[in-house]
Amino acid sequence: MEIKKLTTVEEMEAATAKLLETAEKVGADTWQQRVKNQTPHCGFGEKGTCCRICTMGPCRITPKAPKGICGCDVHGIVGRNYLRFTAGGASAHSDHGREICHTLYQTRADGNYTIKDPEKLLKIAGEWGIETEGRDIYDIAHEVALTGLNEYGKPFGTQRFLSRAPEERRKVWEREEIAPRAIDREVSTAMHMTHMGCSSEPNALIRQALRSGLSDGWGGSMMGTEFSDVMFGTPRPVDTEANLGVMEKDMVNIIVHGHDPSLSEMIVFYANDPEMIALAKEQGAKGINVAGVCCTSNEVAMRHGIPMAGNFLQQENVVLTGACELIVVDVQCIFPALGPLSKCFHTKFVTTSKIAQMPDSEFMHFTAETAGENAKAIVREAVLNFKNRRPELVNIPNLKQKATVGYSLEAIKKCLDGVTNSHVDALGTTKPLVDCIRSGVLRGAVAMVGCNNPKVRPDYAHIELMKKLIKHDIIVVLSGCSAQAAAKAGLMDKAARTLCGEGLKRVCELVDIPPVLHMGSCVDISRMMLLASDISCDSGWDIPQIPLVGCAPEWMSEKAVSIGNYVVATGIDTYLGVDPYVKGSDQVDGLLKGGLREWVGANFVVEYDIEKLGDMMIQAIEDKRAALGI
Amino acid sequence: MEIKKLTTVEEMEAATAKLLETAEKVGADTWQQRVKNQTPHCGFGEKGTCCRICTMGPCRITPKAPKGICGCDVHGIVGRNYLRFTAGGASAHSDHGREICHTLYQTRADGNYTIKDPEKLLKIAGEWGIETEGRDIYDIAHEVALTGLNEYGKPFGTQRFLSRAPEERRKVWEREEIAPRAIDREVSTAMHMTHMGCSSEPNALIRQALRSGLSDGWGGSMMGTEFSDVMFGTPRPVDTEANLGVMEKDMVNIIVHGHDPSLSEMIVFYANDPEMIALAKEQGAKGINVAGVCCTSNEVAMRHGIPMAGNFLQQENVVLTGACELIVVDVQCIFPALGPLSKCFHTKFVTTSKIAQMPDSEFMHFTAETAGENAKAIVREAVLNFKNRRPELVNIPNLKQKATVGYSLEAIKKCLDGVTNSHVDALGTTKPLVDCIRSGVLRGAVAMVGCNNPKVRPDYAHIELMKKLIKHDIIVVLSGCSAQAAAKAGLMDKAARTLCGEGLKRVCELVDIPPVLHMGSCVDISRMMLLASDISCDSGWDIPQIPLVGCAPEWMSEKAVSIGNYVVATGIDTYLGVDPYVKGSDQVDGLLKGGLREWVGANFVVEYDIEKLGDMMIQAIEDKRAALGI
Repeated sequence: MEIKKLTTVEEMEAATAKLLETAEKVGADTWQQRVKNQTPHCGFGEKGTCCRICTMGPCRITPKAPKGICGCDVHGIVGRNYLRFTAGGASAHSDHGREICHTLYQTRADGNYTIKDPEKLLKIAGEWGIETEGRDIYDIAHEVALTGLNEYGKPFGTQRFLSRAPEERRKVWEREEIAPRAIDREVSTAMHMTHMGCSSEPNALIRQALRSGLSDGWGGSMMGTEFSDVMFGTPRPVDTEANLGVMEKDMVNIIVHGHDPSLSEMIVFYANDPEMIALAKEQGAKGINVAGVCCTSNEVAMRHGIPMAGNFLQQENVVLTGACELIVVDVQCIFPALGPLSKCFHTKFVTTSKIAQMPDSEFMHFTAETAGENAKAIVREAVLNFKNRRPELVNIPNLKQKATVGYSLEAIKKCLDGVTNSHVDALGTTKPLVDCIRSGVLRGAVAMVGCNNPKVRPDYAHIELMKKLIKHDIIVVLSGCSAQAAAKAGLMDKAARTLCGEGLKRVCELVDIPPVLHMGSCVDISRMMLLASDISCDSGWDIPQIPLVGCAPEWMSEKAVSIGNYVVATGIDTYLGVDPYVKGSDQVDGLLKGGLREWVGANFVVEYDIEKLGDMMIQAIEDKRAALGI
Repeated sequence: MEIKKLTTVEEMEAATAKLLETAEKVGADTWQQRVKNQTPHCGFGEKGTCCRICTMGPCRITPKAPKGICGCDVHGIVGRNYLRFTAGGASAHSDHGREICHTLYQTRADGNYTIKDPEKLLKIAGEWGIETEGRDIYDIAHEVALTGLNEYGKPFGTQRFLSRAPEERRKVWEREEIAPRAIDREVSTAMHMTHMGCSSEPNALIRQALRSGLSDGWGGSMMGTEFSDVMFGTPRPVDTEANLGVMEKDMVNIIVHGHDPSLSEMIVFYANDPEMIALAKEQGAKGINVAGVCCTSNEVAMRHGIPMAGNFLQQENVVLTGACELIVVDVQCIFPALGPLSKCFHTKFVTTSKIAQMPDSEFMHFTAETAGENAKAIVREAVLNFKNRRPELVNIPNLKQKATVGYSLEAIKKCLDGVTNSHVDALGTTKPLVDCIRSGVLRGAVAMVGCNNPKVRPDYAHIELMKKLIKHDIIVVLSGCSAQAAAKAGLMDKAARTLCGEGLKRVCELVDIPPVLHMGSCVDISRMMLLASDISCDSGWDIPQIPLVGCAPEWMSEKAVSIGNYVVATGIDTYLGVDPYVKGSDQVDGLLKGGLREWVGANFVVEYDIEKLGDMMIQAIEDKRAALGI
């Protein structure tokens, strides 16, 4: 079999360099330049040792000033900053989930949003004790949605989805007092604890960081994932393409960017509207091409095969191609830079959410209630903008790769069913995967997630780590911008199995999967938590025993810290390539990188050397195997 | 009449200087030294131009680096920081209110907490449409409490207490889209909007700051106030004393510090327990003396006449007297410094809330369910510690003043009833006050609130401004640490009326009140909002028309910014003596100090020169009078 030819980071960088020439030509600002302007960064901020929580300060901890004016020491300051960082992430992820709950609440048989996976809805209703017998599916949907919305603010009790975790794990959460209550309450608690004159004890602060993180992963994010599946369909393997080459020179290019599929699903729908396509042809285009950036891209790729134009640090590049008629965004990870940048081109930059309002954007409010007309208006605006394109600025890099995406937990189990002896074994379990791990055909698994960060050579860490891991017969599951890095490189092409070790290669052939599996967007890390739970139940191993680790080599956002907290609190060691601003306190740093193990059976590891980071993960997986005696 | 002799700031400073000598003797750290260590402060932090919201940075805005790595400009960064600052304050205040709701939920006829103001409970139940007819008062209390708890997280609708505002104001809130929804949701929304890649548009950020603030003032704080009154009694005028001289050399001194009366009420109760007093006598003390610091002090002073040992920047002084057996705290504004400081003395530093856990403290968890036993154990610990006092370190400054405190809105109306002709006029209104303002006997009113901040000479601004205002026939209503500054100076002694102008002096004589009125703790600024609303209804003036302004000359905490936002959003101009870290953006600064007037009819004014600040308030009040033609 021919060795799969990956797109290298060098090739991507060469394409970017060309686009930066265009940027210079039109006088546009780019992140590459801004990084230079902002370097070096403030050492206090990077170490977490600066406090701006009241106006007596700001205070900065130095050997000569070892305490803030209130007397808070460096551990309290670093710990508070870490907790607030987590709260920012948990609120963002969970609020995405809330919007999805609201959308579910708006579903109607003849509405913009319908129920595409009634089976999943009924399953959740069953878990939540909601009556389903003889009821209209939309009645059930509305009650489930309302129940979900109440998970954000109920005065008593913990998150309903905790019941999906193995019993051992639930006991840990109870014992450690980190079982999350109402999601918004955990955010408020985090903010209150870090208010001037409240908590400065690192253990207390980090404990709340775990709890707030868990309210995201096992609360808001999980609802975001599950209800998106209910409305838009649970992902199944689908073919797509990735990298800037997916943009079409002769078509109207609409870029969807952000996170919430409520918007992008509608854009995709109206981009296929014959009326809109006819309009595009009237304007001289061959049609309408929708492509995605960031997690929105993951959402529409895994449900519709919509191509992926790129990930976080590629968002400016889509405009720099000169071929982007309109970039429409909802929330999170959107560069405010897109406003001024789009003004250097014909590109329309459309913001749609009250949560994310930016200067130099056109605000077209998008709501679940008026989704159809909003989406149509946006698509029309893009189409009518085609004629304003400046051909002399058009440069679409000739880079793209094939990818198979959409490996939801349900899809993974279905793939595994294909290699199950249905006469002997139950279907719909992770047992074949467990068997492969137990036998050593697979050494283990890595869940790789997260963003890009200019502190790490973009995509390099993601791609190099994946290559290393699959060569070592470790299967990699992916979400977020990490997934797009893989797709751009070509690692999500099934042909990439040639890059695997012998064991993983055989598994990929038998099960017919690529060696790295696309599980979705960043809220979909909840899918990975359920995968770990299922493996635990199917194997009898406690989650921390499973030869499985998490990894975010290029992360940058608060959401990533919230995720890290819930992944670790779920019992999965998590390897980071960027430090979460805690180096200033050996107590906080020590807790995160070691002390947590006593609480939850896992901890963080931070290592900037990507080669070493990979080695450490492989070693950790081998150690877990040895401990299990497999 | 003899001119009232106030305690001067110089006298207080001389007493502090003596205590600092003790600090030096025992090797204790003090805020005075820490301020020196931390000066100068970071200019980026002070101007709000530093962003640590993701780990691509931190980014700092300079002429050479005008944008963060994501492209966010200085206005977005300053605006986000301001919104997060507000969210911190709103969460803290409101979470205090939530604890009070929980306590109300625990009330029982034979329990630790009972209903002391059933009339107020029934009134609220009526407002909220809760059935009262024929029901047990505790049943009603529990339903009201549960309804209150749901105000934090209900999926739909706005805060119930908004209905208490004049109709005009409610229309403004609707029009400007700042009517607050569930309290915790507003905190989460604020955190989400400020997440990387969400809002950077200053208008959007400041609008959410107002909404989040309103969820505090007309939501969490108002519930905190109202339900505290229901359980502990609505304050009525009561005599007390203030300043460090209230500590007793021959008694066990217990200092209550923090905010939540659920704790301090129980401490006061058990300090009066004959068993505890007998135990104190056994230990060689003459009895047990409870005194307060910060807002907890306001709570127990206005309900029980418990003396006020001091305000925010005096908290270390109570330990430095060497006569403090135990300082017990709940949440907010507690110096972590108290931990190490108390270890230099025999003082026990007891933390009680999971929200505020600090190193070097003894954690004795206090809950509404076990309040009695918790409080008794704490009092016992204090009593048993008396014998450990080191007499050579004891130095209680001979400074105290008489004060009359407890002017809740209900108490103010009752005072006003005393000068109403009950044959002609309705009782229980603010009409006599309105008449005084209309006639010019009183020129207007100032609501002065907030903390101390070492950036302002402690208490000086509070006291000098009050003296200036009352001389100008402007009545001053107070809460928080501003109130304690007044009490320490002697301005809450009814005899201080000799310092007033002729008009205010006559009013004070007729109504028998001091010239500055103690309205409670910082959550009780909600009382001021209701006072403004009542004046509006009784006068026919729209709130922004009333000759009334807010003032926080020495503020330092996030709560103060949350308060400022809701006071301004309620239509009351607010004068600050400390800048809220926004000077780096002319857009944000301009909005807060001007632009808001178009939205809500009021804005902030920041002026460091206290003399000028006073003149500006007087001028503003005179301008409002002129505009009304009175």
